Amino acid sequence: MTAPTRQTAAEAGPGDRRVVLSIDAMGGDRGPGPVVAGCDRSARKNPDLGFILHGPEDELRALVAKRKTLRGRCEIRNAEGVVAMTDKPSQVMRRGKGTSMWSALESVRDGEAAVAVSCGNTGALMALSMVRLRKLPGVNRPAIGVLWPSRNKQGFNVMLDVGADVRADAHDLFQYALMGASYARNGLHVDPPRIGLLNVGTEEHKGRQELREAHDLIRNHAQNGRYEFVGFVEGGDIPGNRADVIVTDGFTGNVALKTGEGTASLIGDFLKEAFKYTPLSRLAALLALPSLRRLQKRIDPRRVNGGVFLGLNGTVVKSHGSADAMAVSAAVKLAFKLANAGFNQKVAAHIAAAAQVAEQAREDNAQGDGATTGEHI
Amino acid sequence: MTAPTRQTAAEAGPGDRRVVLSIDAMGGDRGPGPVVAGCDRSARKNPDLGFILHGPEDELRALVAKRKTLRGRCEIRNAEGVVAMTDKPSQVMRRGKGTSMWSALESVRDGEAAVAVSCGNTGALMALSMVRLRKLPGVNRPAIGVLWPSRNKQGFNVMLDVGADVRADAHDLFQYALMGASYARNGLHVDPPRIGLLNVGTEEHKGRQELREAHDLIRNHAQNGRYEFVGFVEGGDIPGNRADVIVTDGFTGNVALKTGEGTASLIGDFLKEAFKYTPLSRLAALLALPSLRRLQKRIDPRRVNGGVFLGLNGTVVKSHGSADAMAVSAAVKLAFKLANAGFNQKVAAHIAAAAQVAEQAREDNAQGDGATTGEHI
Repeated sequence: MTAPTRQTAAEAGPGDRRVVLSIDAMGGDRGPGPVVAGCDRSARKNPDLGFILHGPEDELRALVAKRKTLRGRCEIRNAEGVVAMTDKPSQVMRRGKGTSMWSALESVRDGEAAVAVSCGNTGALMALSMVRLRKLPGVNRPAIGVLWPSRNKQGFNVMLDVGADVRADAHDLFQYALMGASYARNGLHVDPPRIGLLNVGTEEHKGRQELREAHDLIRNHAQNGRYEFVGFVEGGDIPGNRADVIVTDGFTGNVALKTGEGTASLIGDFLKEAFKYTPLSRLAALLALPSLRRLQKRIDPRRVNGGVFLGLNGTVVKSHGSADAMAVSAAVKLAFKLANAGFNQKVAAHIAAAAQVAEQAREDNAQGDGATTGEHI
Repeated sequence: MTAPTRQTAAEAGPGDRRVVLSIDAMGGDRGPGPVVAGCDRSARKNPDLGFILHGPEDELRALVAKRKTLRGRCEIRNAEGVVAMTDKPSQVMRRGKGTSMWSALESVRDGEAAVAVSCGNTGALMALSMVRLRKLPGVNRPAIGVLWPSRNKQGFNVMLDVGADVRADAHDLFQYALMGASYARNGLHVDPPRIGLLNVGTEEHKGRQELREAHDLIRNHAQNGRYEFVGFVEGGDIPGNRADVIVTDGFTGNVALKTGEGTASLIGDFLKEAFKYTPLSRLAALLALPSLRRLQKRIDPRRVNGGVFLGLNGTVVKSHGSADAMAVSAAVKLAFKLANAGFNQKVAAHIAAAAQVAEQAREDNAQGDGATTGEHI
């Protein structure tokens, strides 16, 4: 193992010792209450969990005091500043020091915690993560990965990038595939994960040039990267069962994510209206309630709360801004899983190995060129 | 009016005379049966409708003979060839002559019909439409526009492009806005339509460079173009009520369309499973059936069947490949509406007017530059 000791301390193996998560208690739409409640909920289920909570000390101390389970498992770090949802990322980068978000990232940077969790402003969190944690060696663009309800047996697919960066070239997409494969293995226990590259058709000649290049890069590395490559997939496959990981650029991924959420919400509202239509349908709705709740549970975004920032020196889980205790607890559970699996070291190792393979291929090519053409010897 | 006489004959005003549509009877997944049945269904509701049906004469004649309503309102053009769903567009462009698809476009090209309708291969239909109908003067990239179930009072939004071309620059997006505005006015009777430009956030500084340029082009032309511009919109607004027309490039639009369809289908299946869970829920499902049918009706893709090819010399309505009689009838109804409104001439006039304004602005700028800098006089 070449990983620094401080990371190993934070990313302890199962049963070894406590896994510590760094929690930004502020910046969500509902304040620190649901954040502390969500940590408590997780702590009750999982004795290996410990927390460093970042925010105004007095306020947090009062909230934690009410939760017996958190006693002795929750350190509080005072940070008076709060990043607002309306703050611009560029401002936060300049003036963010002293905020709970900044402080939460510092704990990961310093190796005290393996993963940071925040309900705050996504753009600001990514910008701060980039400058404070820095990108993994060899990574050009970090990505945000999300879980998407799907027809797969694990119930979810991974999609990335959903908005860290609006552009991605072929090599970025290739790295997203590596990161997504690691995420599927460690977050969803799918091994080997099937990777699909999002396009407007499944034929190999379709789409933009960078997609065709990425197609070949991802395909050629499948064996070394321990994943299957199913080739191009379409929008309909995002909630489908052709692939476990959907790779795309942050622009397309962001639009797809919000289109899916908007469509689900529209259908939910249409369904409510349909059941209000007549007295009989209102009666039917009463009887149907358990079924509708089962449906609700399967597509409830709170159950899969957490976009994961990938490609940084440390993992950051971004919870929904409007997260309640249940949603925060889901984000904490995901963060624990990734910390416990030593996720970030694995991603770093995959990126490094792929870079080495690419370097070797370049050298082989250069030697091959020389041998066949007789030039540049 | 400067439009050629042959177009005026085909795009007659309401009550003036019969509106003739050119129908590709072949190439759909279910053969010509549902196509003829769909035409019959529309013809019974609308006495102004006439058809030219393209396909193998004997087969079509037998099908039409069973439909009294179509008698005397349906001309048959023999075309023995059929474009298969698996045919590559490039092959069809070279060898498509003699197919029903080719023949259906010829009737529009020759001014016998105002609009063509086909259930066939989308890529082939667009490729053939480009070479046989040709692009409208000033149009660089044609687009495919679709109707999308939404929270709007008209029940649908227009989105374009959903896959005619994977790329679009700022000027293409501007032209999509003009075409989409015309479509919303003539197809949905929304006046003035509200245009939104799809992006990853609503702030003006967000997204790619071409989007910021398109933003200004669309905004500056709003008054002349008789639309409102609501600025950037997000994926969640595609089924929302912030805009009536969603403008995007064909790659993003195609992914969004298929993601929305896939999500709706996934939720439908989850709903069915939820209702099968217990004996009580199966009883609830029986009672809930009318409500679920009401929901089904609101999001049934057959009710809004028809992607419209925009930016060509003639309108082409692309029906779903798997369309049944009801879906074909919906596509025919849309084609009639657009033909009856003289839609294509209106689009052409808007594109021409916008080009004139842009030319004028360039001239003014050139003169202005000269006056202020003292150069280039």
